[in-house]
Order: sequence, then C-alpha cells, then structure tokens
Amino acid sequence: MANARCTDSGLPVSGEFALIERYFTRPSARAVLGVGDDCALLQSAPGMQLAISTDMLVAGRHFFPDTDPRLLGHKSLAVNLSDLAACGARPLAFTLALSLPEVDAPWLQAFSEGLLALADAHQCELIGGDTTRGPLTICITVLGEVPMDAARLPVPTSALLRSGAQTGDDVYVSGSLGDAALALRALQGQLPLTAPLPSALLAQARQRLDAPQPRVALGQALRPLASACADLSDGLLGDLGHILARSGCGARLDVSQVLPLLATRQHCVGGPAQFDATYGTELALQCVLAGGDDYELVFCAAPAQRLAMDALAQSLALALTRIATIEAEPGLRLVDAQGAPLQASFASFDHFTP
Amino acid sequence: MANARCTDSGLPVSGEFALIERYFTRPSARAVLGVGDDCALLQSAPGMQLAISTDMLVAGRHFFPDTDPRLLGHKSLAVNLSDLAACGARPLAFTLALSLPEVDAPWLQAFSEGLLALADAHQCELIGGDTTRGPLTICITVLGEVPMDAARLPVPTSALLRSGAQTGDDVYVSGSLGDAALALRALQGQLPLTAPLPSALLAQARQRLDAPQPRVALGQALRPLASACADLSDGLLGDLGHILARSGCGARLDVSQVLPLLATRQHCVGGPAQFDATYGTELALQCVLAGGDDYELVFCAAPAQRLAMDALAQSLALALTRIATIEAEPGLRLVDAQGAPLQASFASFDHFTP
Repeated sequence: MANARCTDSGLPVSGEFALIERYFTRPSARAVLGVGDDCALLQSAPGMQLAISTDMLVAGRHFFPDTDPRLLGHKSLAVNLSDLAACGARPLAFTLALSLPEVDAPWLQAFSEGLLALADAHQCELIGGDTTRGPLTICITVLGEVPMDAARLPVPTSALLRSGAQTGDDVYVSGSLGDAALALRALQGQLPLTAPLPSALLAQARQRLDAPQPRVALGQALRPLASACADLSDGLLGDLGHILARSGCGARLDVSQVLPLLATRQHCVGGPAQFDATYGTELALQCVLAGGDDYELVFCAAPAQRLAMDALAQSLALALTRIATIEAEPGLRLVDAQGAPLQASFASFDHFTP
Repeated sequence: MANARCTDSGLPVSGEFALIERYFTRPSARAVLGVGDDCALLQSAPGMQLAISTDMLVAGRHFFPDTDPRLLGHKSLAVNLSDLAACGARPLAFTLALSLPEVDAPWLQAFSEGLLALADAHQCELIGGDTTRGPLTICITVLGEVPMDAARLPVPTSALLRSGAQTGDDVYVSGSLGDAALALRALQGQLPLTAPLPSALLAQARQRLDAPQPRVALGQALRPLASACADLSDGLLGDLGHILARSGCGARLDVSQVLPLLATRQHCVGGPAQFDATYGTELALQCVLAGGDDYELVFCAAPAQRLAMDALAQSLALALTRIATIEAEPGLRLVDAQGAPLQASFASFDHFTP
C-alpha cells in the first residue's frame, strides 16, 4: 500500500494510490510506520504478545451488495475486533485489503467513515493494505496485544483460549443472541407474510445484524476471570462446540435458559408467548442456538467467579447469562426445562455446508 | 480460523473447519499459538519490530482463473514476501484468507502444497486465516521482523524504507526485469502472430510470471548498505517513482542501461538486435520500465558501497545493476545513451487505471 504521487516524474497520478491517500491515509499514532511504504512497522511493548486474526467478507454471502457502506465499514472491522475480544486482547492496528468493482467516491467516503469511526473508538490504527478492482470483497487482518504469562502451560500467555474449560465451570454468554439471524430471515422473506416483524422490532434486530458491537472491554476484563472464551460468529452451538472440542470436555445446556436471550422475542407485543404463537418456538431456538453473526462472547468460568461476573456485568451494563455447565463427558447435550434431552438438530453456520 | 470438529455434540463435521484442518493446519513452530483459536499469538524478540504487509489477488485480474493452483499458492505468498524483502525484514508468519467458488479437493491440495513449500523455504509459518465461499480471491497478510534502531530518525528502525534516498546515490535493480510482463502479453495474444515467442523463451519468461522468487536474502543483506528500497510489483517507473516521491528527490535513468535487463531479449536467437527488429524496442522498453509483476528490488546506495554491492551480487549469485543516479531535482528523467531526454510516456500498472 502506498500513497506516493508521482506528478513530477511525468507519470499519471495513479488511481489506486490516489484512492488510498484520499480515504485511508492518516498520520500514524501508535505504529512506528503506517500507510505508505512496502510494509508497516509495529513495535510491541516488552512482555507483550501479538494477537492476530483475519476475516474476509464477500458481497452476496456475508452482506447484501447494497448494504449501507458506512455500516459495512463498521461491520468489517467489528467482526475482526470480536476475535481480539475473544482472546482478551487490546486492539492495536489493522490492515485492509479491498477489492472493488469500480471506484465509487461516495461509497468509499461512507465506507471509510464507518470503518475509521470504529477504529478510533478502539484506538485501532489502519497501518496498511491493498486495493484492487474485482468482486466486492473486504479482508481485514487485525493485531492486538496481550501480556505473556510464562507460568501458564502449555501456552505461555494471558490470552483467553478456547482450550481452557474445566469440568464444573459455568458457561456464560454476553448480551442477547439470535436477533441478527432473525433480521436476516425477515429481510430474506423467510418469515410468514401474514405476520411480518413490526418495523420497530425489525429495526432493532437489524441493528444487531448491521452494526455489531465487538465486546472488546468485556474480553479484556475476562482475562483473569474466565477459563476459556470464543466469540459468537457462527452460532452458539458451533462456537461453544469449539470450546468443548479444544478443551476435551462436554456441556449440558438448558434451552429454556437461552430462549429469553432473543431480544426480539422478549420485546414482542404480547411477550414471548405471543412471539412463539406467531413464529414458533423452533424459529426462536434456531436463531439463538445456530443463528450466527451475534459477535457476543461465550465463555467459561469457575463457580467461584459468580460474584465477580455479576459485578462485571453491572460495570459494563451488559448482561452475562449462565446458560450451561461444563461436564467431563464430551459432547453438547441440549435439555429442556425438565432436564429431558432435546432431539432437534441445529446446523451451525458454515460457508461450505449447503 | 478454527479446526475444531464437533462430531460428539451431534453437529455435523463442519465443511469449513474440516477443510482448514485438512489442508492448512500444521503444528506451530515459531508462533506461541497457531491455527485453531480466535486469534494466533506471536511474540517478537526484544529489540525487534514487526513488519506487516497485505496483498489481495483476484482471479481474472491478478491471475488466470485456470492457473496451476500449485503456482498460484507459491505466487500468493511470494508477492507478500517480496514486500518484507523490500524492508529487509526476516519472514515470521502469515495469515491466509481464501474465497473459493467451490470445494475442489485436488485444487486445494495443490494450492496448499505450493503455498507451504515457499513458506517452509523462508521459515514463514501459516498461523491463521479464514475461508469462505465466493469469487476466487486470495488475501495474505505477512509478518516479518527487523531490529529497531533508536538512533535513526525520524523512523527509529533498521528497516529499509522508501524515504531514504540521497542526492548522488546510485540506483540499482536486482535480477532481470520485464519478462513477466512479456509472458503475459504473449499469453494474451498481444505479440505479432507472425512472430510468436519461441516456446523455450516463453517458458522461461512465464516462469517469471508464475513463480517469482522474492528477494528475501537480498533485502536483509541490504539493510546496512542501502539508503532506500522498494519491491518491483507495479513496474520500475512506478516503484522507483515511489522512492523519489517519498525521498523528495529525482533521478536520471539511462534506458540503454535497463534494456539489457529483459532476459528474453538477451536470450533471443540472433540477440537483442533480432528481438528489437521482430518486436520493436518500444515493446522491450514497455516491459522493462512499466511491466510490473517482477518482484525484484529497486534500491539506492551511496557510491562508496559499490564494492560491497559487487561482493553481495557475487555471494547471492544475483545481478545487481546500476541503472540511475539520484539527483536533487524532483522527477524521473529518462535519457538515451547519448543523454538526450526520452519523450515516451509509460504508464505504471494500476488496478484502477483503465
């Protein structure tokens, strides 16, 4: 990525470079060297480790091609910051690779504003990248930092990992779940035509789909409290499943505890019962358990941390809900309020499962 | 990026995760934590800075959709390693984001082999990434390291930058130039039908297009010798133009010194004169000066370094050719062997210039 202009050399002002300079170049604050050279340079503080994650968003698959570019800029970085949050890392910097079908100045203006506003909110600096012509695709690599912890084995880090869950741990999720998936179904016309979502409810749910808030502060606060953590991008069952698989354990999950996490259902006129009567409990469960695109955190902690979790929830003004218990027996067992096993199967979101 | 399998939880073995596990997951060597969690973790050694660069390759723009996937895997990482080389950084690790129209096992097998063979050759570890369904697009972010240098101002680094060229410096390029661009023209049918490139010459030129060798060892060796450096991805005029613009200076370039850098022209039966008679000197100049896709280095050094450069060229078995001199007056002046200004204009490669 470069922002050099070569007017003096008789070369044309290059479209790509002018584009980068106009929308994405700002003075570097935290980086040793930001946008404008072959590489950016970053120096981590002594005793710190870098946390690195990459996400690619493709038009027509991860977002509608006509999505408001400001929201798209926000979401492109948000899904990456959510990975840093899952590790308890503090955001530092990111690179942006952008493939665009055409140079559309108002689109780029709005996209960069949405992107850089969230970057500024988390003091996460744009340090480099690439632009090219092609199908609308956004790829961000984000860099954060966590303190090393030489005493911790087998991975000498203070970062939250998926692999640390212990038998007896409580399993929590932050915030509300499933509303993004419900909004997507509504927008795709998958809800009954006779009972569309009221516009105020749809707007709230769509906010979750379009402008997720990465739980960066929560992740950092959880470092000394939680035993394992993942972010909810593919759906609760899938992402909790990753924790269980990596930790070599299982869990029992009472679905009656997670149903109230669907905010749209709680806020429905007539309450949850009316929602279930109109759309079916099955839809609510699908959205909460397998919806994807929530960007909340699912994490485990010893029961001794319950008071600390209550205090943390209060200080962050964010619900932290106990939904399951870690058990030695591998597998995720869904049970109803009476403890009876649920037979339903829920596919987690996967870009390669039809 | 995750490689967890959730068979025990009643979830299907996820296509995306199984894919990643099969082709791209290997034990981590240098990273604190590699593929399989929300973030990878990397710890840089004391006194080192991270060099970071991102490149995105789009099918139909940067490569033919039917390109041999093994070569494509190689080239995808090579163009990123070339950015590290330009800074004199030692490769450490990279992330890979891959958008694929379908899951094609032989394609993935070959792509990952080409990618990981080059990664192994440079001890550059795959630490994470993302896979999704979509138009064939490859985005790699590469991380390397360079020693910090607190005494150097305004950027306290030992990395080679574009901004350090000084009046009186020699300008060098490594290796040969323009053969990748010539191969591309031949493959696109832009050479005269009456005089196709002989197949042995085309094969050599195509090797430069398909399997560029990033000058990683050269870049590191240049750190104490060169005043400025860039890699040649967009063409000599454009990339040297970046050095001049960032360094606030100009250069005088004798095109008769760069014409012999087109290896295909030198190796032509009948010699360079026969090449020029058949294809025109203009074509040779276009390829050498503005061809792009060379992935050689262009760099500046004080005349006092000439003996050191000769020794370096010999030790690396790589030509290092002096092609220009840095001058105080901004701009890049092309002159012929007699010193007369060249009138021709050469567009550097740009994804957004039609």
